[in-house]
Amino acid sequence: MKNEINIGLLGFGVVGSGVAKILHDHQDDLSYKLGVPVKIKKVLVKDTEKERDTELQRDIFTADLDEIIDDPSIDLIVEVIGGTSEAKQAIERSLLSGKGVVTANKDVMAESGLELLKLADENKSDLFYEASVGGGIPLIRTLEDGLSSDRIRALTGIVNGTTNFILTKMKHENKSYEEALAEATELGFAEADPSADVDGIDAARKMVILSSLAFSTEVRMEDVFVRGMKDIKPGDLELAEQFGYTVKLAGSAKKDDNGIEVAVEPVFLPNSHPLSSVNNEFNAVYVYGDAVGETMFYGPGAGSLPTATSVTSDIMAACRNLLLGVNGKRLHAPQHTCKVKKDSQKFGRYFHRISVKDKVGVLTRLSAVYSKFGASLATVIQHPNKHDGGADLIMITHEISRQQHLDIMDELKNTEDVIDVLSHYRIEGELS
Amino acid sequence: MKNEINIGLLGFGVVGSGVAKILHDHQDDLSYKLGVPVKIKKVLVKDTEKERDTELQRDIFTADLDEIIDDPSIDLIVEVIGGTSEAKQAIERSLLSGKGVVTANKDVMAESGLELLKLADENKSDLFYEASVGGGIPLIRTLEDGLSSDRIRALTGIVNGTTNFILTKMKHENKSYEEALAEATELGFAEADPSADVDGIDAARKMVILSSLAFSTEVRMEDVFVRGMKDIKPGDLELAEQFGYTVKLAGSAKKDDNGIEVAVEPVFLPNSHPLSSVNNEFNAVYVYGDAVGETMFYGPGAGSLPTATSVTSDIMAACRNLLLGVNGKRLHAPQHTCKVKKDSQKFGRYFHRISVKDKVGVLTRLSAVYSKFGASLATVIQHPNKHDGGADLIMITHEISRQQHLDIMDELKNTEDVIDVLSHYRIEGELS
Repeated sequence: MKNEINIGLLGFGVVGSGVAKILHDHQDDLSYKLGVPVKIKKVLVKDTEKERDTELQRDIFTADLDEIIDDPSIDLIVEVIGGTSEAKQAIERSLLSGKGVVTANKDVMAESGLELLKLADENKSDLFYEASVGGGIPLIRTLEDGLSSDRIRALTGIVNGTTNFILTKMKHENKSYEEALAEATELGFAEADPSADVDGIDAARKMVILSSLAFSTEVRMEDVFVRGMKDIKPGDLELAEQFGYTVKLAGSAKKDDNGIEVAVEPVFLPNSHPLSSVNNEFNAVYVYGDAVGETMFYGPGAGSLPTATSVTSDIMAACRNLLLGVNGKRLHAPQHTCKVKKDSQKFGRYFHRISVKDKVGVLTRLSAVYSKFGASLATVIQHPNKHDGGADLIMITHEISRQQHLDIMDELKNTEDVIDVLSHYRIEGELS
Repeated sequence: MKNEINIGLLGFGVVGSGVAKILHDHQDDLSYKLGVPVKIKKVLVKDTEKERDTELQRDIFTADLDEIIDDPSIDLIVEVIGGTSEAKQAIERSLLSGKGVVTANKDVMAESGLELLKLADENKSDLFYEASVGGGIPLIRTLEDGLSSDRIRALTGIVNGTTNFILTKMKHENKSYEEALAEATELGFAEADPSADVDGIDAARKMVILSSLAFSTEVRMEDVFVRGMKDIKPGDLELAEQFGYTVKLAGSAKKDDNGIEVAVEPVFLPNSHPLSSVNNEFNAVYVYGDAVGETMFYGPGAGSLPTATSVTSDIMAACRNLLLGVNGKRLHAPQHTCKVKKDSQKFGRYFHRISVKDKVGVLTRLSAVYSKFGASLATVIQHPNKHDGGADLIMITHEISRQQHLDIMDELKNTEDVIDVLSHYRIEGELS
C-alpha cells in the first residue's frame, strides 16, 4: 500500500490555487480520512518566474508537461488549465500513462467526455469531473451514486451563474441588461467576452454532461436546442411577474418513450417552483426521478474555493481508489443510444407576446391562427400599448408541441394587423 | 467474481415493499450498472401468510431470522424493520456473520451508530444508512464524499416532514395546530402518536447522525438541546411574518473553536433564507462549509419510494464494494472527541414576546433587565393587546449568548407588570 499520494497539478489560476489552498489548510482532515498524506508534487504553469501567493515550494513549478507525465511517483493529475485542445491532450496523455485524472473542464467534458471516459476505462484509470458542472455542488456524484438506483425522468437546472446574476439584478433591482452585465463583469462573475454565458453555450455544455449521465446515453452539443438571453425584451420580466412567473435561463432535459430533449433557453418558471428563487450567482439543479420524485441541489456555481472543493473531493475519491487498488474499475459506457425527439414530440405550454394594430377583429384573426394549428388557449389578455396606439396581446397556450408553437409563430408574422411577435417563452416546471 | 448478489430483506412494510418494487422495476438498469443481477433471496416478515401485492415469490417470505443470517449465499442484509432492539440485534448479527448491511433506521443509528460502524469495520463489512436521514435526499453521501474535502462549519436542516407540513398549513392556510395535525394524520404524514415528531425527538435523532458525520465526532442524543413545537403560541407565525421571518422547526449544528452545539427547536428564519421556502412534507439541509460556502439539498423527507431510492442506492454501493472485494475498507472512527459548548458559548439573536400591563414605565423596567445582563436590543415594539387591556412587547436582541437569554427570561418573569413571557425564539440563518 502506498504511503502517500502525489499529485501533478496542471494550471495554477483561480481553481488551481484554490485546490492548493484546500489541500494545505485541510491536510490534517484529509490525511486522517485517507490514512496517508496527499501532496502536490509538481505544478504546471506557463511562467515559472511569476510571484505567487502560495504555501507551495517555488521549485515544484514547471513549464514542462513531460516532467510531470514522466514522473513515476505522480499518481494523479489534476487538470485545471481550462480551454480545450491543450487540456484535452494533457488529459489523454495522463490517462495513457496510467495516471488518474481529475478535471474541472466543462468544455472538454462536453465535447469529448465519453471518449475520454472510454480511454480511462481502457487504461484502468479513473477520470473524475465533478467540478465541470455546478461549481461546489456535488451533482455528478449525486447522479452517479445518490440517485443511482432511480430512473431520472427530467432535470432542470440553473447552471450558469453569470446569466442568473444578470437576471436577478434585472428583476429585483430593475436594472437594464447592460447595467446588470456591467455589474457582473465588475464583480468577476462575467468574463471580458461574456458571449458563451449570455448565448447559453456554457449552460448547454453543462447540460450535455448532466443529461448524458442522467440518461446513460451520449448527448452531443448539436442535440441541444440553445437560445440565449438576448431574446428577452424589455418588459418581459414584469409581464412574467404579473402572471406569477420568473424568467430564468434554464437548462432542461427530459426523457420519455419517444427519446430525449435537451434545451437551454429563457423560460417562464412558476414562482412556486424551487428554482425560481435561486438568485444571484447561485446554481441549482432540480432532478425528477421515477421513484424519488422531486429533489434539488443548490450551491455556488463557480468561484475559486467552491470549485476547488469539488476538485478536492474528486481527488479524495481518486486517492481512495488508488489506495484500495480499485482505480479504473468503473464502467462508463452508456447504456442507451441517444435518440433525440422531433419538435412534434416535445410538449409544453407557451407564452406569446404579440404587438398588434388596435383594430376591430384582430383578436378573432389571431385566435384563428391558434385554432388552425390545433392549439387551445389558456389565457388571452390585451394590453393597450402606450407608445404607438397599438396593443400588446398576451396569449398563453395549453400544452402544445414545439412544432405547433413554431408553426404559429410563422403564421402570426404573416397575419393582418400583427406588427411583430415581441417575445415568446416556454413555460417550464409546471406539473402536466 | 460473483455472478449475482443476493439480498436478505428484513421487513416488508412501507419502505421494504418500495425497495422490492425498485429492484424489480429498475432491474435492467441496476444490473447494467453493476454488471451482475441483484436479487432478493429471502424476506423476513412476522406473518408469512398475509396477502401481499408484490412480484416476489411467496416462498421466499420467512418469519425466521436465522434462516437468513445462516444462508451463506446471502451477501447483503437490508434492515427496514424499524424500531430499536430487534433491528439493532439483527444488524449486529448480520455484521458478525460477515454480511454487509444497509439500514434505514434512524433510531438505531442515532443511538448506536458509531458502535455499529465500529463493529462493521472490525468485521470487514459495510454498513450504509443513507435512508436514515432525509428520505430520498442523498445527504450522508454528500457529507462523506461530495463535501469530503471541506470543513463543515454549520448545518441547518428541516429534517422532520410532519412538523414542516403542520407549520406550512398553519402559515399558508391559517389552520390551527390541531387542524393541521389532523390533516397530516389523515394524509399519512403523521403517526397515530405524533409525539416523537412534534416534540422534536425524531429531528434530534437525525441531527445526531448528521452532526456526528459532519464534524467527525460522536454526538449523542443528550448533547442535543431539544424543544418541540408545542411552545409555538397562536399569533407567533403572523408576528414572525411581520418582521420578515418564517417559523420552522429546525435542526442546527455548529462548530467553532469552543466546541459544537446541536439543537432542534422552533426558530425564526429570515424569509430570504433558502430553507424558509421549504414547504409541506419536504425536507432540506443547508450546509455551510469553509471552502464551498452555502449549499442546500432538498427533497422528499419520507415516503415509500423516496426512502427506498436511498436504500437501493446504498445497496448499489454495497454491491460495488462486494464485487470489487473492497467491502469493509472504510474507516468510521471519529477524528475528534466531542466537546459540547456551554450555554455561555452559544450565540444568537433572540426574539421575545412579552405580555405586560399597560402602565407608565413598563418599557423602562423591561429594557433595564436586558441592560443588566449586557444584552443590547435591535428592535422594541409595543402592540396594544385587545383582550385584556394590557400590551404585547416585542424585543429583538442583538447577538447574545444562550445563557444571557435564559437569565433574561428568568428575570423578566419576576419583573413588575410582566404578565408572562408568551414566546421566545432564536433567530437562525442570519449572517453574523
